[in-house]
Amino acid sequence: NKLWGGRFEQTVTDKVEKFTESISFDKELYKHDIMGSKAHASMLAKQGLIGESDRDSILKGLDEIQRNIEAGEFEWREDREDVHMNIEAALTEMIGEPAKKLHTARSRNDQVLTDFKLWCRDAIDRIVASIKNLQVALVKLALNNEGLIVPGYTHLQRAQPVLLPHLLLAYVEQLERDAGRLLDCKVRMNFCPLGACALAGTGLPIDRFMTSDALGFTAPMRNSIDAVSDRDFVLEFLSANSITAIHLSRLGEEWVLWASEEFGFITPSDSVSTGSSIMPQKKNPDPMELVRGKSARVIGDLVTLLTLCKGLPLAYNRDLQEDKEPVFDSIKTVVGMLEVSAEFAQNITFNQERIQKSLPAGHLDATTLADYLGLPFRTAHEIVGTCVHLCVSRNLRLEDLTLDDLKRISPAFHQDVYEYLGVENAINKFRSYGSTGAACVAKQLDYWVTKFGISKN
Amino acid sequence: NKLWGGRFEQTVTDKVEKFTESISFDKELYKHDIMGSKAHASMLAKQGLIGESDRDSILKGLDEIQRNIEAGEFEWREDREDVHMNIEAALTEMIGEPAKKLHTARSRNDQVLTDFKLWCRDAIDRIVASIKNLQVALVKLALNNEGLIVPGYTHLQRAQPVLLPHLLLAYVEQLERDAGRLLDCKVRMNFCPLGACALAGTGLPIDRFMTSDALGFTAPMRNSIDAVSDRDFVLEFLSANSITAIHLSRLGEEWVLWASEEFGFITPSDSVSTGSSIMPQKKNPDPMELVRGKSARVIGDLVTLLTLCKGLPLAYNRDLQEDKEPVFDSIKTVVGMLEVSAEFAQNITFNQERIQKSLPAGHLDATTLADYLGLPFRTAHEIVGTCVHLCVSRNLRLEDLTLDDLKRISPAFHQDVYEYLGVENAINKFRSYGSTGAACVAKQLDYWVTKFGISKN
Amino acid sequence: NKLWGGRFEQTVTDKVEKFTESISFDKELYKHDIMGSKAHASMLAKQGLIGESDRDSILKGLDEIQRNIEAGEFEWREDREDVHMNIEAALTEMIGEPAKKLHTARSRNDQVLTDFKLWCRDAIDRIVASIKNLQVALVKLALNNEGLIVPGYTHLQRAQPVLLPHLLLAYVEQLERDAGRLLDCKVRMNFCPLGACALAGTGLPIDRFMTSDALGFTAPMRNSIDAVSDRDFVLEFLSANSITAIHLSRLGEEWVLWASEEFGFITPSDSVSTGSSIMPQKKNPDPMELVRGKSARVIGDLVTLLTLCKGLPLAYNRDLQEDKEPVFDSIKTVVGMLEVSAEFAQNITFNQERIQKSLPAGHLDATTLADYLGLPFRTAHEIVGTCVHLCVSRNLRLEDLTLDDLKRISPAFHQDVYEYLGVENAINKFRSYGSTGAACVAKQLDYWVTKFGISKN
Amino acid sequence: NKLWGGRFEQTVTDKVEKFTESISFDKELYKHDIMGSKAHASMLAKQGLIGESDRDSILKGLDEIQRNIEAGEFEWREDREDVHMNIEAALTEMIGEPAKKLHTARSRNDQVLTDFKLWCRDAIDRIVASIKNLQVALVKLALNNEGLIVPGYTHLQRAQPVLLPHLLLAYVEQLERDAGRLLDCKVRMNFCPLGACALAGTGLPIDRFMTSDALGFTAPMRNSIDAVSDRDFVLEFLSANSITAIHLSRLGEEWVLWASEEFGFITPSDSVSTGSSIMPQKKNPDPMELVRGKSARVIGDLVTLLTLCKGLPLAYNRDLQEDKEPVFDSIKTVVGMLEVSAEFAQNITFNQERIQKSLPAGHLDATTLADYLGLPFRTAHEIVGTCVHLCVSRNLRLEDLTLDDLKRISPAFHQDVYEYLGVENAINKFRSYGSTGAACVAKQLDYWVTKFGISKN
Repeated sequence: NKLWGGRFEQTVTDKVEKFTESISFDKELYKHDIMGSKAHASMLAKQGLIGESDRDSILKGLDEIQRNIEAGEFEWREDREDVHMNIEAALTEMIGEPAKKLHTARSRNDQVLTDFKLWCRDAIDRIVASIKNLQVALVKLALNNEGLIVPGYTHLQRAQPVLLPHLLLAYVEQLERDAGRLLDCKVRMNFCPLGACALAGTGLPIDRFMTSDALGFTAPMRNSIDAVSDRDFVLEFLSANSITAIHLSRLGEEWVLWASEEFGFITPSDSVSTGSSIMPQKKNPDPMELVRGKSARVIGDLVTLLTLCKGLPLAYNRDLQEDKEPVFDSIKTVVGMLEVSAEFAQNITFNQERIQKSLPAGHLDATTLADYLGLPFRTAHEIVGTCVHLCVSRNLRLEDLTLDDLKRISPAFHQDVYEYLGVENAINKFRSYGSTGAACVAKQLDYWVTKFGISKN
Repeated sequence: NKLWGGRFEQTVTDKVEKFTESISFDKELYKHDIMGSKAHASMLAKQGLIGESDRDSILKGLDEIQRNIEAGEFEWREDREDVHMNIEAALTEMIGEPAKKLHTARSRNDQVLTDFKLWCRDAIDRIVASIKNLQVALVKLALNNEGLIVPGYTHLQRAQPVLLPHLLLAYVEQLERDAGRLLDCKVRMNFCPLGACALAGTGLPIDRFMTSDALGFTAPMRNSIDAVSDRDFVLEFLSANSITAIHLSRLGEEWVLWASEEFGFITPSDSVSTGSSIMPQKKNPDPMELVRGKSARVIGDLVTLLTLCKGLPLAYNRDLQEDKEPVFDSIKTVVGMLEVSAEFAQNITFNQERIQKSLPAGHLDATTLADYLGLPFRTAHEIVGTCVHLCVSRNLRLEDLTLDDLKRISPAFHQDVYEYLGVENAINKFRSYGSTGAACVAKQLDYWVTKFGISKN
Repeated sequence: NKLWGGRFEQTVTDKVEKFTESISFDKELYKHDIMGSKAHASMLAKQGLIGESDRDSILKGLDEIQRNIEAGEFEWREDREDVHMNIEAALTEMIGEPAKKLHTARSRNDQVLTDFKLWCRDAIDRIVASIKNLQVALVKLALNNEGLIVPGYTHLQRAQPVLLPHLLLAYVEQLERDAGRLLDCKVRMNFCPLGACALAGTGLPIDRFMTSDALGFTAPMRNSIDAVSDRDFVLEFLSANSITAIHLSRLGEEWVLWASEEFGFITPSDSVSTGSSIMPQKKNPDPMELVRGKSARVIGDLVTLLTLCKGLPLAYNRDLQEDKEPVFDSIKTVVGMLEVSAEFAQNITFNQERIQKSLPAGHLDATTLADYLGLPFRTAHEIVGTCVHLCVSRNLRLEDLTLDDLKRISPAFHQDVYEYLGVENAINKFRSYGSTGAACVAKQLDYWVTKFGISKN
Repeated sequence: NKLWGGRFEQTVTDKVEKFTESISFDKELYKHDIMGSKAHASMLAKQGLIGESDRDSILKGLDEIQRNIEAGEFEWREDREDVHMNIEAALTEMIGEPAKKLHTARSRNDQVLTDFKLWCRDAIDRIVASIKNLQVALVKLALNNEGLIVPGYTHLQRAQPVLLPHLLLAYVEQLERDAGRLLDCKVRMNFCPLGACALAGTGLPIDRFMTSDALGFTAPMRNSIDAVSDRDFVLEFLSANSITAIHLSRLGEEWVLWASEEFGFITPSDSVSTGSSIMPQKKNPDPMELVRGKSARVIGDLVTLLTLCKGLPLAYNRDLQEDKEPVFDSIKTVVGMLEVSAEFAQNITFNQERIQKSLPAGHLDATTLADYLGLPFRTAHEIVGTCVHLCVSRNLRLEDLTLDDLKRISPAFHQDVYEYLGVENAINKFRSYGSTGAACVAKQLDYWVTKFGISKN
């Protein structure tokens, strides 16, 4: 007694039913399915394809079903396969004959895509909000630590001194592009498949523009075969998520490093740390480890979806039912990663004293020294390299070298060289646009503070 | 009030708790966790680290907990993080003081790996059994269609005639290697991590050989750091699953093709087909489409796990908690794919008449004809190519060419050529080991029938 | 004697040199590296950081080097590591002292990203042009086959009749979104990293807006750490490529099916087919098989790049040198896939007669029949399902059923039902926006013809 | 004038030729192709399918061609598509008529798989040797640093003290399983496809056992369709490589951490370090960064191959030509990673003094202290957690607490507690099998020293 059972003599076996059902996960779409069905019913009535009282029964019935679902009183049945059939069958039980008219000029093929796009549109808004939330947390963290100099790294070797806010704003920039990518994706996906029916459209006089408008789409999709067969909108969505996840994995790695005994830059509060079942002293930065780790499943979800779509002929194939779980998982994971990163950001303290004490290590001022020389850069580089070599062999800082030491290496050194040495001096020299110079960073910080409407106190 | 809370002043925030919990999925391990704890407790008692009555309380309590879980009466608590802490805490509530001794000389790091390996060992057995089940279904299908000639394809173009059993046994061969791969994986993983503790072992006089034996492992792992940090056993497991999934995706593709109107080789029964919500005539081979499609998530799961492990320093990192869901999903999916494929195999009929009618198309006998000529093969190939070209231009079969036609192309053709033309003649010529010749295929079929103990009637 | 050798006593071992070199692949960037260096030198001169005659020597020298490279006369040296050092060292050999000033206020970190973005910008233009080229080929194929009805499929089962142009335009729609995705990517990436230097900017008075403008960027990147450490622009690029590749893999699959003996929809010309080394009759649609297959490496390239970036702390890490090969491979592959698909499209003939002969199979008119009934759709679906069941048991088409047959199933059938049966009738009924109705398809076709400026004769 | 051109009127277009050629990469197989052809020719002669003088000409010609290739004098022609056709055509030019007989009872389908398996077999031997080489380097490093205590980490937080050799041997264990996995793969792949021909075998009286033996295979493959269509042997191979690559990425991460200013555990020699183009002081551990990074492409190669094979129907499809590049790339990359890791291991010095100075940080003795208490472990854990809390608030080590301090927390502490505190004391307590206890580690080290025949001086 499937709703499509007319030509069938046997029902499917239990194993096949279990293997092919999607209700266990696609019920997630219930709200958008009902939204779509309401728009569809209203359009059918407007076009005279169903009566107005039928429409009213349907709308009322669907509202009732939504209430039931949200109250946890709806019985989801596996033998009804999916969210669409569950709701349609329940509607039929509730209001009888009119329900049987709802699926006029509609197939599950266009219905599910309408639902899924509506769901994804909301999901994008949710992620974009979470991105902003994390950006704000990072900007506030930057505000709270203005002026704090930390070592900047390349190859995880100390490179040049940077202001902590400068470094934190690098993540804010990345996240801003992440949001832009998602919004582009939303614009591109926001065309309505409803009315494409199975794959070819219909001969019934439907009005696709009406349903498209009612559901907030830009316009109906132009080609019915394209409408039911392509999944590029979720491929693009999960790609964008993967890039965000990669960004967060890097933040995770960095903060795990910073929380280590060896770096010792930050102390996370107890409220974002966990302990060990055996080692009583342990206090681990688990949330950021999991942020790093969970990036893997976001990538795995994308690979699943790409592999799924590879090599399928037009139009709809049942394989595509497998498109939902990776999308649901990807969104849930990324939102969690963003939220927890923001919470972590709000619960760390920078160990300013310890950081400052460590700054002399690593010759962070070497490049500034090369710039000081005013020689052809390759020559300057070679000279400073020799100075560093001397420091390493004597276990000194560059600023510990005497002017004699320096002059022996190059006559281009003069007394004013000491205004360029040491981390504070070095950082004070930066002035290029986008650099870690204090004025540049202050301007960047202002930009974001204003953009996000953050109060500075 | 976490079990590790001694040094902490605050508990974790709700969001962090929700983000870091694993109980929602790792409760799947409960049986193996209890099994491991029982072996551990027995060993602790034997070594005098806990008393015998403590041990007895623990064993009894754990049995009780297992019964509760299996009766659905156990309360899994998210604030207790994972399956290990849930069971230990419940045991403490149940039996008090002795429970607090259970975690002696043990960390969750070695505990979870012991549980996970035990679980995987069982899972491998389950998959290997499902593989055999599908192999048997394929062999039976071959038996039921002995002698049926079908077109063999390369490039999805008709190539040479083959016996259907020969083709079905190709999948049986693939599956046999799949099982072998899993069994190798099981041998390699079957070393016991228990007693590695956090990462360094312990100073307490435990007996790791005793627990290893009790749990059916080959031996304890030799290096405690390796024991808690590596996940290669699941990487290997999911790799093996991915290969199986690829094999099944190819079977799925093939059977979807065969069920199409255009190929028309098989008719699946209604019990393994589903219909359309809009198109009343549709009868779709959904299970095999989903077999094909679900291969994607098995690959996605592997990618998740590989990406997860990439670049993590020793030893345990919290990222690794993410190792379980992809494994659970991969196993569940592959078992489903295998079972449903077997069920599908049991519910299809080969349309012998239609297949036979289509055999003359595609010049399946061309290669046999080239062999017939007895000329240097390149020359023979060229000659038969010319014959085919003639057939294409006149819309004929090779056997429709007259001896004059043939002789005009090459004097090497004689009257006996017609014993080599036509699909039946062509297939009768095959005789090389492993070929599609009737005798060879019969021998292969016998091999599998005997191996699986299949009754031929 | 590396250019960075000042502080070093030993040079690297041969194995390390070989393992870490990038010149074997990054010489691909030579043109953009020179372009970037010229803009940089001009800016340095304008800002007074180098003299005008130094600038002129540098510009002239770089032009000379470009000519040498393009004439195949440049010696790429592995011991000079990468394209940047090769060109700088050659310039030094050529013009001496001034060359040593070129690297003022610049690091390879910002240099390589400038080069790479310039390269990617060009690559996007190249792909977008290839996309349009394929779209045009598909539209022309549609124009040449206006009015040709083919079976539309879902689940690879015959579903409803569609016009071939409608189906071909589905791919045109997909490709249009593909191009849009790339152009969005280009807009987002088009910000200039030059001047970010190693990671922190510089204290020298450079003008980043000048170089940004000279190189056609929208603006300099705002944050120097972000500038040198992020690779999201290539992640987004390869994601877009992967989606395009997926689309093409589906086209490949479809055309391989269509070229099979069983479907027989198309005949590719000899000029896009290849033969077999053993089977003289074979003519295989290899290009489209490879289009399908090569999608795999495009996905693999994306996975490489995602995995590469996962978990790297700020700012630059040497791992990132591995970003180039997957990008080069992805672009080359996708361009090849697009070009060959277009060429294939130009070299196939639709077998109109054979297609038409096959149309009665599969009850393609069943949904039209359900719409005809004007009953609640679920009821109509059930009735037509029963009609189909009758046809299957008697091996008839729906139009072969007598009015009596039909009326026995439902009194809602009347004589005019026969105006709805048969594929021609069925297709004539379609009229919804975006449907396969002749008028709708003609409008779509016109849209693309006009957009691409295709002449209709 | 392709060798398969008999039925064709046109040759392929330039673009198609370029897109479909494989000679640019499959010439890598030349040696194994010649080896296979020689065995095949000898078998054909033995079976009377070609004459003995033909055989002799062929063998001599093939040897000559191999010499030409190895002397760099062979002209590889793209219009001859692949390595097989290039060699066969060159042989024909060289020896004439006999060459045309070589392809008797053979197709490129079985030929390429024979070549590829022979190549992979050698590649496995090469990787296994490189694995052993790295293991030896690690064992020697362990020998040179016996007794060196380093902090063991979980969550990158200091956990317990471990002996450096113990930690290094964890990698040796992983690598040992990696080698085992490859050897299992080799056993499973070592069955000969030659004689499967296009897909169906042949009617000619070939002896597949003879060629299988001559080429060192275990036996001929049992099923000709399986033989030409499956690629599971390379999927398994690349899976094994991916796991090895993951292991090496972890080693890479760890050594990059250790080389940082903050950890400061190791100093790599100049010969395995590189500098910066702008920062004169930089000395970067690039080889290990690239080892970490290159793991990404090994995973990408696997994904390419899995995606490639997904959903292909039997038997051979041209997509499968794409199987070679990812395999070649994966092997080359993994061998490079292994070799460079070994070289790096030979060129680092452990900074023993600095490590030792840092050991008191992180309360590495906390777990030993909990064991000391002899209380139910949960209680002991709680008590020591309280001690740690006290230390953190007062910035003390556990051994700095007075007995009074301790007794206030628990009466279970006595004077002998100080024999358990401090890193040296802590490490001396370990004694469980596989633990970091000195005796256990010595035994492990002996095991490997003996196994690899390493001389201890």
